[in-house]
Amino acid sequence: MENQFDVLALGEILLRLSPPGNERIVRSSTFEKRMGGAELNVVSGISLLGLRTGIISRIPAHTVGMFARNEVRYSKVSDDYLIYDRDPDARLGVYYYENGAYPRKPGVVYDRKNTSINKISPEDFPDEIYENCRCFHTSGITTALGENCRRTAIHMMKRFKEKGALISFDVNYRANLWSGEEARKCVEELLPYVDIFFCSEDTARLTFHKEGTVREMMKEFAQEYDLSVVASTQRIVHSPRRHTFGSILYNKKEDRYYTDDPYENIEVIDRIGSGDAYVSGVLYGLLCEDGSCEKALRFGNASGAAKNTIPGDVTSLNLKEVENIIKEHENQGFHTEMER
Amino acid sequence: MENQFDVLALGEILLRLSPPGNERIVRSSTFEKRMGGAELNVVSGISLLGLRTGIISRIPAHTVGMFARNEVRYSKVSDDYLIYDRDPDARLGVYYYENGAYPRKPGVVYDRKNTSINKISPEDFPDEIYENCRCFHTSGITTALGENCRRTAIHMMKRFKEKGALISFDVNYRANLWSGEEARKCVEELLPYVDIFFCSEDTARLTFHKEGTVREMMKEFAQEYDLSVVASTQRIVHSPRRHTFGSILYNKKEDRYYTDDPYENIEVIDRIGSGDAYVSGVLYGLLCEDGSCEKALRFGNASGAAKNTIPGDVTSLNLKEVENIIKEHENQGFHTEMER
Amino acid sequence: MENQFDVLALGEILLRLSPPGNERIVRSSTFEKRMGGAELNVVSGISLLGLRTGIISRIPAHTVGMFARNEVRYSKVSDDYLIYDRDPDARLGVYYYENGAYPRKPGVVYDRKNTSINKISPEDFPDEIYENCRCFHTSGITTALGENCRRTAIHMMKRFKEKGALISFDVNYRANLWSGEEARKCVEELLPYVDIFFCSEDTARLTFHKEGTVREMMKEFAQEYDLSVVASTQRIVHSPRRHTFGSILYNKKEDRYYTDDPYENIEVIDRIGSGDAYVSGVLYGLLCEDGSCEKALRFGNASGAAKNTIPGDVTSLNLKEVENIIKEHENQGFHTEMER
Amino acid sequence: MENQFDVLALGEILLRLSPPGNERIVRSSTFEKRMGGAELNVVSGISLLGLRTGIISRIPAHTVGMFARNEVRYSKVSDDYLIYDRDPDARLGVYYYENGAYPRKPGVVYDRKNTSINKISPEDFPDEIYENCRCFHTSGITTALGENCRRTAIHMMKRFKEKGALISFDVNYRANLWSGEEARKCVEELLPYVDIFFCSEDTARLTFHKEGTVREMMKEFAQEYDLSVVASTQRIVHSPRRHTFGSILYNKKEDRYYTDDPYENIEVIDRIGSGDAYVSGVLYGLLCEDGSCEKALRFGNASGAAKNTIPGDVTSLNLKEVENIIKEHENQGFHTEMER
Amino acid sequence: MENQFDVLALGEILLRLSPPGNERIVRSSTFEKRMGGAELNVVSGISLLGLRTGIISRIPAHTVGMFARNEVRYSKVSDDYLIYDRDPDARLGVYYYENGAYPRKPGVVYDRKNTSINKISPEDFPDEIYENCRCFHTSGITTALGENCRRTAIHMMKRFKEKGALISFDVNYRANLWSGEEARKCVEELLPYVDIFFCSEDTARLTFHKEGTVREMMKEFAQEYDLSVVASTQRIVHSPRRHTFGSILYNKKEDRYYTDDPYENIEVIDRIGSGDAYVSGVLYGLLCEDGSCEKALRFGNASGAAKNTIPGDVTSLNLKEVENIIKEHENQGFHTEMER
Amino acid sequence: MENQFDVLALGEILLRLSPPGNERIVRSSTFEKRMGGAELNVVSGISLLGLRTGIISRIPAHTVGMFARNEVRYSKVSDDYLIYDRDPDARLGVYYYENGAYPRKPGVVYDRKNTSINKISPEDFPDEIYENCRCFHTSGITTALGENCRRTAIHMMKRFKEKGALISFDVNYRANLWSGEEARKCVEELLPYVDIFFCSEDTARLTFHKEGTVREMMKEFAQEYDLSVVASTQRIVHSPRRHTFGSILYNKKEDRYYTDDPYENIEVIDRIGSGDAYVSGVLYGLLCEDGSCEKALRFGNASGAAKNTIPGDVTSLNLKEVENIIKEHENQGFHTEMER
Repeated sequence: MENQFDVLALGEILLRLSPPGNERIVRSSTFEKRMGGAELNVVSGISLLGLRTGIISRIPAHTVGMFARNEVRYSKVSDDYLIYDRDPDARLGVYYYENGAYPRKPGVVYDRKNTSINKISPEDFPDEIYENCRCFHTSGITTALGENCRRTAIHMMKRFKEKGALISFDVNYRANLWSGEEARKCVEELLPYVDIFFCSEDTARLTFHKEGTVREMMKEFAQEYDLSVVASTQRIVHSPRRHTFGSILYNKKEDRYYTDDPYENIEVIDRIGSGDAYVSGVLYGLLCEDGSCEKALRFGNASGAAKNTIPGDVTSLNLKEVENIIKEHENQGFHTEMER
Repeated sequence: MENQFDVLALGEILLRLSPPGNERIVRSSTFEKRMGGAELNVVSGISLLGLRTGIISRIPAHTVGMFARNEVRYSKVSDDYLIYDRDPDARLGVYYYENGAYPRKPGVVYDRKNTSINKISPEDFPDEIYENCRCFHTSGITTALGENCRRTAIHMMKRFKEKGALISFDVNYRANLWSGEEARKCVEELLPYVDIFFCSEDTARLTFHKEGTVREMMKEFAQEYDLSVVASTQRIVHSPRRHTFGSILYNKKEDRYYTDDPYENIEVIDRIGSGDAYVSGVLYGLLCEDGSCEKALRFGNASGAAKNTIPGDVTSLNLKEVENIIKEHENQGFHTEMER
Repeated sequence: MENQFDVLALGEILLRLSPPGNERIVRSSTFEKRMGGAELNVVSGISLLGLRTGIISRIPAHTVGMFARNEVRYSKVSDDYLIYDRDPDARLGVYYYENGAYPRKPGVVYDRKNTSINKISPEDFPDEIYENCRCFHTSGITTALGENCRRTAIHMMKRFKEKGALISFDVNYRANLWSGEEARKCVEELLPYVDIFFCSEDTARLTFHKEGTVREMMKEFAQEYDLSVVASTQRIVHSPRRHTFGSILYNKKEDRYYTDDPYENIEVIDRIGSGDAYVSGVLYGLLCEDGSCEKALRFGNASGAAKNTIPGDVTSLNLKEVENIIKEHENQGFHTEMER
Repeated sequence: MENQFDVLALGEILLRLSPPGNERIVRSSTFEKRMGGAELNVVSGISLLGLRTGIISRIPAHTVGMFARNEVRYSKVSDDYLIYDRDPDARLGVYYYENGAYPRKPGVVYDRKNTSINKISPEDFPDEIYENCRCFHTSGITTALGENCRRTAIHMMKRFKEKGALISFDVNYRANLWSGEEARKCVEELLPYVDIFFCSEDTARLTFHKEGTVREMMKEFAQEYDLSVVASTQRIVHSPRRHTFGSILYNKKEDRYYTDDPYENIEVIDRIGSGDAYVSGVLYGLLCEDGSCEKALRFGNASGAAKNTIPGDVTSLNLKEVENIIKEHENQGFHTEMER
Repeated sequence: MENQFDVLALGEILLRLSPPGNERIVRSSTFEKRMGGAELNVVSGISLLGLRTGIISRIPAHTVGMFARNEVRYSKVSDDYLIYDRDPDARLGVYYYENGAYPRKPGVVYDRKNTSINKISPEDFPDEIYENCRCFHTSGITTALGENCRRTAIHMMKRFKEKGALISFDVNYRANLWSGEEARKCVEELLPYVDIFFCSEDTARLTFHKEGTVREMMKEFAQEYDLSVVASTQRIVHSPRRHTFGSILYNKKEDRYYTDDPYENIEVIDRIGSGDAYVSGVLYGLLCEDGSCEKALRFGNASGAAKNTIPGDVTSLNLKEVENIIKEHENQGFHTEMER
Repeated sequence: MENQFDVLALGEILLRLSPPGNERIVRSSTFEKRMGGAELNVVSGISLLGLRTGIISRIPAHTVGMFARNEVRYSKVSDDYLIYDRDPDARLGVYYYENGAYPRKPGVVYDRKNTSINKISPEDFPDEIYENCRCFHTSGITTALGENCRRTAIHMMKRFKEKGALISFDVNYRANLWSGEEARKCVEELLPYVDIFFCSEDTARLTFHKEGTVREMMKEFAQEYDLSVVASTQRIVHSPRRHTFGSILYNKKEDRYYTDDPYENIEVIDRIGSGDAYVSGVLYGLLCEDGSCEKALRFGNASGAAKNTIPGDVTSLNLKEVENIIKEHENQGFHTEMER
């Protein structure tokens, strides 16, 4: 009982290397060294808000893998289901990221083939993993990594679903990992198991060939696959350093849309992981004690918006901080300048 | 004669610890290490403009205290009236500060109880201290620290006043140090000794229960306590990284208000100490050779506005730099892009 | 069963601030920011070797406290028994440390009065804490902090002992925390509950007024208080950057001394915490599956010696690394130059 | 054939020292160390776009000079025509630069007298230098440095022109190097050899006493001195961190002006060298395989605008990056957020 | 003629990531970012001494690859024979390295599978590559990488040999890349083409099953495969921070051994690449204008010894610096303390 | 009376730029930025020990000059006699320094010609400067800088001597500033005014052509020029990171030599300025309340030895720290490991 996980997520853990400040990769003499990965970002965001989470992954047993594990623990995400790859060629995926400033865009280089997670298999994990958890989350990135990851993801969705967990899935389409057609086929295969579905308007239109308004497309997804909640972020990129961020949620049972004023003119420091922070806010809102779509929307928008101001992939906002941001966002009156 | 101080200020010197750049306290692996303290900020700003100042305080004799003393000297503030606390438990106050970016606010954590200044007493200082000085400054922060500090502040105000110095006082109300009621009582007790009074509109209204427009409240203060000058800053916080800064001065003798176009859309790098830099500009304007309220307003606004662009609590702008900023602010014609 | 702790330790968590590299506190512009505390150092060392540990402490709920908690997790030490102090004046102890180089000694400044742990009480913790643990560890530092800490330490020793746990105690005498006489009285009061006792030769002689050789003093302690194991490190400080480190263990039941060749000419990078790393090696050696005094000696010496080469208070050596160091130390033949 | 240079430039190489991030020179404990110099900036920008370039200069043979040479190579600029000054007093020019933020302007301090380039002479270089090159570039900064530099610049212009190279000249007027009158006389002496002429509107008006619109002044220059192309940048400095950048080109043969939408609200990180990056874009546009004034304008504007987002004097944008920026600038439709 | 290369080397270029100073990989928040690779280390060392060199390799066309290319140029190594891999999955090998301090050894983690060089082929390079070069160098690391690299290495050895170049080969046996048996077979296959052979005593004994003294084994190699020169380093690792370094050379034609006093008690800062620096000193000594085995020994020993004091894989010592180290090493009289 | 200076020194203030840690100038991307200068080093060392000192110099009025002035204040050296050079070409001398490690020596590059001090003149200073001071110090570096500096130095020596001050002079011979012959002539011209003379054995022998033992040469100097005290350091450079440091003093009046056990195996971090720290210890020992040659020797040796462990030119040791080092050096018994 007490050790039940609120959310377990399956996904790759990546080493992110970025030049400090405004430096460029082709020149800088150092890299900042951080951990990321869409699903890790999601669960660490949820943990910071107070729920119990864990990451399901496979990482090298060597010292760089141990750094990854340390970072997992740092965010109070359980490392109970990290499998260690002792192969001498075991490797952690790496990606290189640099910030942009108008008119220069941010840039990213991936080096994530043949990484330890590619040898993952459902057999690596004990059966108890399925007993103990209220919600399982993964994303289209995991299913795009390769056959083993895809198979494990779908297997786990089924098993978790059988045991009563909610299944959360974020399409997170990345053209450099697979083609739109591959993505569409795979996602359509797993959507029957999904309860909470995250999909951007562009992906709905371009990858799934949906038509109509965002609202229409969201509803169509929900009806076609019996999804409980469909969520879609709405980001406007004014420049690499100024974004506007909001979202829309659709609750199938209520047949109701939830939306709110977006956060405008966000002072972006690091936009990586803001979509994942949004997912963590939504899942927290749905899963916490007095959860609701209303709360999911508020926490999703605030977490997603505020992540843009935090360096690294992983958010660092705790419950009180997110609540203050929400309060301030809704506040029409006197605003304090600082958290003292 | 020659060694006369233009301004002496009584106040605590604090160690400020901040994560570098945009990092967060919960994560960063280093702290930038700077000195601050409202009154130190004020006198160091004045020294940089060319007047002679000193700080009256009590700090530990240990190596961290020596770092504080070094920083005092660095700003050409005299350390003649620093008292060294050789108690093995002597401690310097610390505060932790991190920058914000919309929608995440800056944050501060104080650790300033039981610090060396709390054992300060007027007896620590020689009588000559009162002979030699044109203006004595302190703030509500000092009077809020505790009984010894309050007693010393009021004692010094009286003694300096007797010897002909102008008395400057900045309310600088901090809800985490004392209640509004405590503050009101204490400040009302010392206002009879004050000549130059700094008080924000919010504090006038909320702490002193004044009513009416800012101008009305300022005038009321001046009349009630026979103040020469009352000054009030006007800051608009568009976001943690964009402020507008201006002020209004009231000269009782002339029964005249001074104001000017505010500095708009300041590119804020570190807003801490900008209020103190304002005070230093005003005091410089009143005390320098050709001093006047006109000059006080200009130097106050420029110093306060420009401090926002300087990392750390303490400004680093010298006379020529502030004069250039004023000239540029008033300039309608050709603007050079750079100080070459 | 599965969640049983191998070791729980009671002690203060401190923020350590050090200038980078060879810089000095009076001058450097940054501080490296790390966590320390004798008992935390011990349990994190044990966790890295593979046993399950937790820290019992009380820390502020604010963002600097959260940094402390993150660092606890980072070392896989459980934070289940961290109590959060929500008092607005809650503070974390700080200490400032700088490295030395002959003929300049390392230096340390403590600022650890009135910290959150001083309000600790046995009532803060659930009864289950005592059910679940094989060994309880604390040190003379904790008992020196003040009445509440001392009371809690002795209370916990008794309760843990009743429930069958081994009690480990490291005198760790610090003259700046209490007098030798206070220390002696307090330690003599709690020694009846102790099983594993760590005491240096100097402390035995100067604080406890023992006489004779180290071996004689160790045996006398064991007999006087029915201790199972007495351990004493033997460090030679050739210079701040070159130490020799070894130890001697006495097993009362066997009436046998264990000792080994010391590690000579250690290339010291950061000697803080090497005594604590020694304790963690010894406790690991006694508590691990095939534990013995022999193993305790080897792991204690290797952990203690190697900690000197690791920056920060807390060791970072995992089981494989310590085993390799032991193997190399005992190896008479071919030595590889690098861990590839 | 194969080793022909597309552009050779004559100019001084300077060591630039800047405090990191937002720090100020009067306080910071470190300097970032970079190389600059108007002509080096130009040729390194062109090399990054794919043409072959070299720098003609004279630098000290000591270790700081070797750092300069390394930086030259780093940008794939040939160091074949670097002359090494082995005089024990040989020195590299230094300049100190700090960023600004409104209302504080950026600042610069020059220390470039008596540097190694001041002893340059045409005799230092072999005759082959003139055989092998499509375009020779220098600027008014070089001619302002002193008699030797001026004489060498004019000598080289003539010799390169004789051998059929295009001559490019950027006035780049700096009031701290020479008076307007000196500049006018010198530039008028060398304009008869120039083909491509860069001159800002302000300089045309204030230094050359031209009148009328920019377009009229550009045309007048072209006609008076038989210039092929005259180019003039148009920069609006909204604040130190926000600029707008565009330009206008005049082609004498076609009697046609080229212009385009400026880049608005550039997020400025380091504006130094953006004028030089503009020159490199224009020269690339004119000299590349399918070169034209149209292309020169596009590459000039994009290079100049984007350089503002790159720390240091020297741009780091390669051909693909500049092409993407141009494409994005002209794109009316869907914009990706990131270069993946 | 003029563009002839003195040395061309075939080998992989790796990104090396190391925590700064004494930090550990499992904890540090940044990585220093440098380039390495045995053959690149060799040719950059030779270039610094004044000969013309180039690297033959295959690297990704992306921004991290461009960083690698920039570093190649930085050392004045020609990038004419770098092939760019435009595959979206192109990757640069990475290795993670941390320093040690007794009793903790340095550690390294490799991540160099499936890198761009593995798709190298002799067909990637024009025939002119073989025409133009006095010496071709590669190492056993290249031949261990995989089939393509091995095939290319042997093909190039033959072609270069046909065109009259000397062939230099360093066994550089790495147990983590291939087995001793694989190594032996491969090296025996290519030794018939080799002129200058580098092989350590351990490798001769353990991998090639040679017997006798070093001198006997060296001579046996020379006779068996008609090698001109055989060189063997002799390193004593007193501790990670203190080494002794010397070597022995055998000249077959003269049937003579060359040796010299080793450099004792080297203050090691970074030992990686010191073997490669030795090779570059030897090749420089053999290939420079007045080359000889005598000179090869001196430059090899000095370069190898001194590289240990330089951070990164690649040496940074120029001709004058190495000559001074040799002079000092041989000097029996007055020693200056500093290079002024 | 009260404001009397104990020591005033005349000398140049230099900006020192060094790569961090073990980095090399040819490669590093940053410089540490510190102030130095032989005479500044001396007076700041004396100030830290508790006497009142000031520096007589001429520096640029620009922002880099202001950084220099700030550093002067930082060490509690009075800036009352700093003259500001407002010439647009005013420059501060710069020197570049990098650490060594055996077998690579430290290296230094000077760029100190045409600096602001070269326009110094005795007329720049008020007469009161001579009234107020117990000891005037300068060095052979100042007299080597050029005609103005030499003339000012000799003028000041005479004037201070007339007013009763002791004259201290350190030959500090630097072959890169002047020839031995120039040095000899100049020093012989000023020696008649000197009371306390610092001269190394090598300089005595090579520059002044003295013969015999050190003691004989010291005595000969004292007799020839009526010097009160002659001091000579004795440094053994085992390697760039390990020195031994001691000295010998000769008191003419007593006709007695003072010497002591040297500090052996100093762990050198930065040897620059250790000779100057020695001078400051000696002058402190002679000038402090209970001054004597005995005390001068002890403080000289301890200051000089310990400076080697402190980064930068300027020492940072205060009185208590130097006293502890002396106590420890003389202590035969129990040594504490750390300053707590």
